[in-house]
Amino acid sequence: MPKFTPSLDDMQFIMHDFLKITDHYQAMGFEDASDPELVNAILEESGKFASEVLSPLNHPGDQTGCKWNDGVVTTPNGFKEAYKQYCDAGWAALASSTEYGGQGLPYSLGLITSEMNVSANTSWNMYPGLTHGAIHALAHHGSGELKQQYLPNLINGIWTGTMCLTEAHCGSDLGMLRSKAEPQDDGSYNITGTKIFISAGEHDMAENIIHLVLARIPGSPQGSAGISLFLVPKILDVATANGATDNQVTCASIEHKMGIKASATAVLNFDDSKGYLIGEINKGLACMFTMMNSARLGTGLQGYGIAELSRQASLEYAKERIQMRSLSGVKAPDKEADPIIVHPDVKRMLLTQKALVEGCRALAYYTATLVDKVEYGHDPDGSADKILGLLTPICKAFMSEAGFECANHAVQVYGGHGYIVESEVEQMVRDARITMIYEGTNGIQSLDLLGRKVLRDRGEALGLWVKEIKTGCATVDASLKQQADEVSALCDEWLQLTGAVGAKVQGNMDEIGAAAFDFLMYSGYVTMAHLWLQQANASLNSSKDESFNEAKRQTMAFYFARILPRVKTHKALILSGADNLECNDFEI
Amino acid sequence: MPKFTPSLDDMQFIMHDFLKITDHYQAMGFEDASDPELVNAILEESGKFASEVLSPLNHPGDQTGCKWNDGVVTTPNGFKEAYKQYCDAGWAALASSTEYGGQGLPYSLGLITSEMNVSANTSWNMYPGLTHGAIHALAHHGSGELKQQYLPNLINGIWTGTMCLTEAHCGSDLGMLRSKAEPQDDGSYNITGTKIFISAGEHDMAENIIHLVLARIPGSPQGSAGISLFLVPKILDVATANGATDNQVTCASIEHKMGIKASATAVLNFDDSKGYLIGEINKGLACMFTMMNSARLGTGLQGYGIAELSRQASLEYAKERIQMRSLSGVKAPDKEADPIIVHPDVKRMLLTQKALVEGCRALAYYTATLVDKVEYGHDPDGSADKILGLLTPICKAFMSEAGFECANHAVQVYGGHGYIVESEVEQMVRDARITMIYEGTNGIQSLDLLGRKVLRDRGEALGLWVKEIKTGCATVDASLKQQADEVSALCDEWLQLTGAVGAKVQGNMDEIGAAAFDFLMYSGYVTMAHLWLQQANASLNSSKDESFNEAKRQTMAFYFARILPRVKTHKALILSGADNLECNDFEI
Repeated sequence: MPKFTPSLDDMQFIMHDFLKITDHYQAMGFEDASDPELVNAILEESGKFASEVLSPLNHPGDQTGCKWNDGVVTTPNGFKEAYKQYCDAGWAALASSTEYGGQGLPYSLGLITSEMNVSANTSWNMYPGLTHGAIHALAHHGSGELKQQYLPNLINGIWTGTMCLTEAHCGSDLGMLRSKAEPQDDGSYNITGTKIFISAGEHDMAENIIHLVLARIPGSPQGSAGISLFLVPKILDVATANGATDNQVTCASIEHKMGIKASATAVLNFDDSKGYLIGEINKGLACMFTMMNSARLGTGLQGYGIAELSRQASLEYAKERIQMRSLSGVKAPDKEADPIIVHPDVKRMLLTQKALVEGCRALAYYTATLVDKVEYGHDPDGSADKILGLLTPICKAFMSEAGFECANHAVQVYGGHGYIVESEVEQMVRDARITMIYEGTNGIQSLDLLGRKVLRDRGEALGLWVKEIKTGCATVDASLKQQADEVSALCDEWLQLTGAVGAKVQGNMDEIGAAAFDFLMYSGYVTMAHLWLQQANASLNSSKDESFNEAKRQTMAFYFARILPRVKTHKALILSGADNLECNDFEI
Repeated sequence: MPKFTPSLDDMQFIMHDFLKITDHYQAMGFEDASDPELVNAILEESGKFASEVLSPLNHPGDQTGCKWNDGVVTTPNGFKEAYKQYCDAGWAALASSTEYGGQGLPYSLGLITSEMNVSANTSWNMYPGLTHGAIHALAHHGSGELKQQYLPNLINGIWTGTMCLTEAHCGSDLGMLRSKAEPQDDGSYNITGTKIFISAGEHDMAENIIHLVLARIPGSPQGSAGISLFLVPKILDVATANGATDNQVTCASIEHKMGIKASATAVLNFDDSKGYLIGEINKGLACMFTMMNSARLGTGLQGYGIAELSRQASLEYAKERIQMRSLSGVKAPDKEADPIIVHPDVKRMLLTQKALVEGCRALAYYTATLVDKVEYGHDPDGSADKILGLLTPICKAFMSEAGFECANHAVQVYGGHGYIVESEVEQMVRDARITMIYEGTNGIQSLDLLGRKVLRDRGEALGLWVKEIKTGCATVDASLKQQADEVSALCDEWLQLTGAVGAKVQGNMDEIGAAAFDFLMYSGYVTMAHLWLQQANASLNSSKDESFNEAKRQTMAFYFARILPRVKTHKALILSGADNLECNDFEI
């Protein structure tokens, strides 16, 4: 059965050898995090928790799932205890502000440790993961009083948080939401409505759950301009029987899902529940977006985190499972057949996993350093914020697509055995599938990238990013010149494609949607080519051993030979236009 | 909830307008099947059975699954009754020889009707589906006595059949199998061994189950040259208690799987079970391949059959679900938002489903007519057999990849709701996933295509097929000249790529495996381009209405603009060679 092992070498390589992350921490004044040994010790300890505590609960959690009974939700065996250990050890508070009891380590370091939790047990990680989003929105937009009252227990993990956006009739289109918030004399609001798909919406792991709820104050404008954000605690003072609370927040049911079955996805009824305004009236969507941008990077991380688990499982199985002889001659004469890892088609799948996982890891960590810069006020010219905005939809969509692909390769490497539940790899496919959907479907991400972050921005952020990539191309070792030239040429093509779509859009706004998904994937592959080039360059002067460094360059070569050519198809589709999307079947 | 509706218009269009299938039946002497009205009546009745009887059992069957208790397997509610109806109505016997009680209709017509059963309920269709394979092998290789004794009840469906190949340590590599067959004085054999992954290996739908079992006679050569095929009935004369039979065939357990949960996948123990040799001693694999080629086309059909269901579900949902306004202006002013079908990215997914499903349908039906020619002795120069050999791995692998892709698009079109079990679309992803694995993984199919059917064949079959495609290009309507030129150019490129790989293989046999998967996918897309071109051509003089015909040409245009460009990436990967597949992580 697949066991999760933290890829500490690769994580350290990307952090230290590629990103020089402790220099980055030092520049921002994070003293503790400026010490590589401390950073590595945190990684190691976090990896132990993930592999020893969370990983063994992953498959049993999928098999048991969460149970709902009369409003009360029970998480799978061991989840509650693991969560207590996580909080007690201080992992919950790692990257939160010391002002409210956090440990004050940088955001990026928190994200990196959570990668291992995701790989080990994606469902379990939903509970603290959503809380981080809630902390983020509250810290940025909440009043001093609300922060004082709610942040400490959210940060130490005694309470968890949620994001209550979706209603049955609206997911992507929040402007249609109907939950209402009636102002009360004491300055609070009475919230009434039903929210669905609420991750960690109800469970048995925390003493209280702090819901961040989007609702409409009567008299507010129609659509998305009339939505406000509220903090609604599950429990105001005391819990009452049958899962109902003294704040009238009831879990009506939990969903039966394809995967992440140990994550409770709740239908929540709010019935004149007391809520407190966060941020300004009618600016709820903007406040929520603070939360969603960080959540989107987290979703991308889920994608490649599951992919990392699938990579490990595949590699191990491919070395153990013997089946047929290599066409180029017997490789394991002592065995009845060769291990399947000798077969080129199996190598192709394994290297695809490695190239995508390690490429995504580099992308996620790099993007997390941008969040650091923006979050901690080290972005004097706003360029980090610009590039972060550009990379966020790419991280979410491209990394989730990559994650799903890798999980599927694991099933294929396992063959028939991969289709059997007890192999545990089919769970990876089911768990990974949601990452392409939630926090904004990949279609929505694509519109965000092409429509908002590129075209409406008049290419400014893209220009900054291309400039950074090209600077990188110009400074790599001479042995990488061929790849650097290729990346540089792709950057030019990327700008040309942007111009071509931009010109079409003048005549027909549907040209954005027609090109968006392929534009996002194209952008992802070019961005990842840059990151592989830079990883290969870093491997030439790395602290790791030569076998590791050489494997980096082998994987880079594979990426350029067998992954990057996907841009050829995406380019053709970007240019193919909206006219080919008509069909008589579509009449409404 | 998605309801299956037979796509009779499209099926009839492909059969009559494109393939002129009744002329084909007439040429082979099938008198009844030469009547288009009779053929259409069969389609309609079969469609009714699929949509009214099988479809309602599909999702409940997934949720219940099969139950194993002390050797006895119970199929989900209604499965047994549906199977009885199927047999009583004569569907089981439709395409079997009249000599043993079949209705004597052509193979292709049987396959086409089974497409609807697959779409309606893939799991259910496994039971009769496997039986057809067993009938095929027995009819071709069994002795007159065996045929007399077993074919009638297999054909009328009172008994079902299985293919017992896989053992725990060997799936792709059957040469390693250990089940043994001891010769007995009466000419029979005692079969002992454990087989796994046996579809329909045990169930409650038939009075007896006839297992076709691969085993080794003591003293036979090692490897695949020492394997023989045996017919082993579950019951010789009488059933005994507790699932054990008088022939010592016991179902030790059934697998818990990702999907096709209503199909019982059995572990079977044979313990000195009486078996009868089929075909010659040590020629078992060859006999089994007779069965597997037909099973491979059937597996491809499962892939696109599920895709058809996913296409219907997506189209319906995209018209109903309202979410956001079209960027090019409001399309449904009477509604609070526009149906999501107005969004280009949704149209992209819907048209991808339509283009792949209808393209696969054309490929499957065409290939089935080749089976007819070979099977019924209407292949004087052997060219149909050649092309059939070439197309079989393409049908299996390309159509299963396409099916899985389409099922995933359905989940994406449904958004968060698609991830919920009750939407029924996530089941399609789980059900479709197996088709890429069983009956030979798609990696094995790729090796079969490139290694055996193309290179070892010295391109003869490929040459015949390219010639047929080019003849088609030369004869289409002038309005399709652009697409015809593109297909023709791709055929030239296909031959060049074959030559390039062939040259590399001289130096390193691993070049086959390194290029195989992409070669197969490339071959699939070019083949499908030909079939779309011919469908578009047929639509210009079709018996269908103009809206249907125009939709065919719209979908053809979409295929050429947005699916066919995938060959660009596959071409680059075919040419990229085996050298990029090395990685230090792979050391064994």
